[in-house]
Amino acid sequence: MNVAQLQAHFAAQQNRFVREWQDFLRFPSVSTNPAKTEDCSACARWLMAHLEPMGFTTRLVPTSSHPLVFAERAGKKNHPTVLFYGHYDVQPEDPVELWKTPPFEPTLINGRMYARGAQDNKGQLFAALKAIETLVQSNALNCTLKILIEGDEEKGLTPVLPVLQMEKTALKADIVMAADTSAVSSGAPTITMGLRGILTFTATLSGPDHDLHSGVHGGRIPNPANALCRLITSLHQDDGRVAVPGFYEGVHEPSVEERALANAQPIDPAWYQSVTGVLPVGGEQQYTPVERSGFRPAIDLNGIHSGYGGAGSKTIIASRAMAKISARIVPGQDPVRILQLICDHLQKHVPPGLVLEISEAVPGGPAIRGNLSSPAITVARQVLSEISPLPTAFLWEGASVPILSHLPALAGGEAILVGFGSEQDNIHAPNESYSIEQFRLGFLYTGLFLGRLGPR
Amino acid sequence: MNVAQLQAHFAAQQNRFVREWQDFLRFPSVSTNPAKTEDCSACARWLMAHLEPMGFTTRLVPTSSHPLVFAERAGKKNHPTVLFYGHYDVQPEDPVELWKTPPFEPTLINGRMYARGAQDNKGQLFAALKAIETLVQSNALNCTLKILIEGDEEKGLTPVLPVLQMEKTALKADIVMAADTSAVSSGAPTITMGLRGILTFTATLSGPDHDLHSGVHGGRIPNPANALCRLITSLHQDDGRVAVPGFYEGVHEPSVEERALANAQPIDPAWYQSVTGVLPVGGEQQYTPVERSGFRPAIDLNGIHSGYGGAGSKTIIASRAMAKISARIVPGQDPVRILQLICDHLQKHVPPGLVLEISEAVPGGPAIRGNLSSPAITVARQVLSEISPLPTAFLWEGASVPILSHLPALAGGEAILVGFGSEQDNIHAPNESYSIEQFRLGFLYTGLFLGRLGPR
Repeated sequence: MNVAQLQAHFAAQQNRFVREWQDFLRFPSVSTNPAKTEDCSACARWLMAHLEPMGFTTRLVPTSSHPLVFAERAGKKNHPTVLFYGHYDVQPEDPVELWKTPPFEPTLINGRMYARGAQDNKGQLFAALKAIETLVQSNALNCTLKILIEGDEEKGLTPVLPVLQMEKTALKADIVMAADTSAVSSGAPTITMGLRGILTFTATLSGPDHDLHSGVHGGRIPNPANALCRLITSLHQDDGRVAVPGFYEGVHEPSVEERALANAQPIDPAWYQSVTGVLPVGGEQQYTPVERSGFRPAIDLNGIHSGYGGAGSKTIIASRAMAKISARIVPGQDPVRILQLICDHLQKHVPPGLVLEISEAVPGGPAIRGNLSSPAITVARQVLSEISPLPTAFLWEGASVPILSHLPALAGGEAILVGFGSEQDNIHAPNESYSIEQFRLGFLYTGLFLGRLGPR
Repeated sequence: MNVAQLQAHFAAQQNRFVREWQDFLRFPSVSTNPAKTEDCSACARWLMAHLEPMGFTTRLVPTSSHPLVFAERAGKKNHPTVLFYGHYDVQPEDPVELWKTPPFEPTLINGRMYARGAQDNKGQLFAALKAIETLVQSNALNCTLKILIEGDEEKGLTPVLPVLQMEKTALKADIVMAADTSAVSSGAPTITMGLRGILTFTATLSGPDHDLHSGVHGGRIPNPANALCRLITSLHQDDGRVAVPGFYEGVHEPSVEERALANAQPIDPAWYQSVTGVLPVGGEQQYTPVERSGFRPAIDLNGIHSGYGGAGSKTIIASRAMAKISARIVPGQDPVRILQLICDHLQKHVPPGLVLEISEAVPGGPAIRGNLSSPAITVARQVLSEISPLPTAFLWEGASVPILSHLPALAGGEAILVGFGSEQDNIHAPNESYSIEQFRLGFLYTGLFLGRLGPR
């Protein structure tokens, strides 16, 4: 189907699409709320019932939390296999008093649907499902399509990852698609070409077995709080580079084209300061701010706590000091190895008399980075140029999407991440919304992309 | 009076001394408890009534909190003037359920008086007052004696210091005595030759105006928590020396004799570890642990707080990080100047994009250090050798006693600090006690010392 056919179909079916989308949004499928367990299951069963008439073989896969919906439809020989990922769970609706319309009574106002999950991820997901339905009905879906819709994305990776690892064979695909990202602020269609990986751990440095008088003991014993600051400082050189030996070994440098495309979406310092309160002047100065978060790994303190924090002074040497540390990693860095390197470096620098304990160490997942010259990306670029007059933007995100760290490797395919979210959608906040126009763009993109994937 | 006469007098009067001491201890003069305001005033009036028959001119000096008792008795011409300092307020009695006898019903058991304040400071103070009474009655007190007894020592310096500054002329003295210190653990008589001074402040480093996503922004902006660790680390060299320019300028190095006497009370590392949980291996390694706390200044973090501190991880860059910092200073270091040097150093090292705010800056007070060859110390050493077979110990304490930081300078005299406290007195804790034997030693020392001060 070409863009005009898809547009005509959307116009004809829009009212039905909206009604069904509202049915989907009415499930209060809040994965972190134990009282909503049955709502999550009901939502998963509704999705199964929705996919089956479209010719999919479906099954519910139990997890330690909410079930996964897995659907598969065989395509033509020699055509690629696509794994489409989405999630049916939503963020909690709190604070509910700030909503202008009830969060689970989806309401269309001036072309925008207001509801929890209107965008994240039910809106973006359902636009794609309607495109798939359209292709199936028109006998225009040639690839083998696998659909994985989980119910724990807002809760974390723990319930789902072990199940996915067991289902590795079923997940096998050439392309992993997800519609869970955003477009750049101009509204230009956007391909998210990369996500950083993540690892987190807690470092606790202990010395005295109780808080000591800083007068009696100051200058005589190693102060755990001072020493932890010194340890954390030892992670970086003065110029902002990470000082952990081996940390940069194997890091994939961006190509000239990648740098150019990334820097085509520059960060305006004044705008950045107006929204964050700070200038983008940290880190490795030989890279632009966009490059630093897109292509370079970073180690950040997420928290540090020791001793007194109230008003005035309390002259103690605290018995211990604790830091929450995370690293964002890039392609070429294995999370398990980098975690080990950082912890080894810290252990090596512990001063005499103190003991460092590493706990809650989680090698969250590796980075992903797309290949600009892959056939699938070429198709995505072509398709996006047909649905928008604006030139396609390419983003290498600094953030991590844990499941998307793992899915491409589990499936053995490349990730193609195109989403139409925008800042004004207020995801994770009261009055979440998604416009019919964004929904329509997601529909057109998915329909054109999947329809255009030819034999390999 | 010689030691035998004082001993005989003590034996004859012991029962009365104990009864009066108990009267003193019955006042629940808890300065930090607003409900005990009248008890504090009553205790002050009781002291006045007690001092007047001893030939002292007394007055109550109001403060913003509890009144000071000031008493004065003129001595012979050319004899030195002594200012004797003590405090009538006591720590709160909580947790009262852990007391074996009621805290304000002083109870003598096996030669120890159990009560809040039994030692700190009512016991040590009252032993001295009884010695003074004895000298007066025997017409053996030749020096001019000023007695200053405050009611806010356990509360802090704020209510009393401004009043003392106004009373500077009245406080003028050659010698400032206090009986508020302890003896070494062997029980040998002990002269506290030095106390460190103190300054405290709060440093807050701010950047983003709200917590930011560490994935999106990590490596792109200066992280206030990491940057505060780096700032704090910049305060010290790798070898433990303070790195703030000018910090050591003018610091009085201990003499060979001071080092020898200090090191005669060495810290046994195994014992130290058993009571603190840590070995005394921090700070400047070219000094012994005793020298480090006694003669060397130190900067310590008393607390640091930023960002997440709960279970697991929260991948944020916190908008600010806060540290509570104190320095212990030694003779030759002016607290106002050192505070300025440290804050200037920190400000100079703030990385681009972040803002450092210094607040709650308190130049608490300077250090004091006695002169081993002063005539008064010579008298004290002689007197102590007469009341105990054990050789006198000399301590240079790492802690600070704020009022004693200021009194010698206000009075224009030297401090002579001899006390008979011991670890088992449980001051500031339930079941505080003080033995008749400790009381007797304080009585003998004060009587001999004051009686022996000859014309100058």
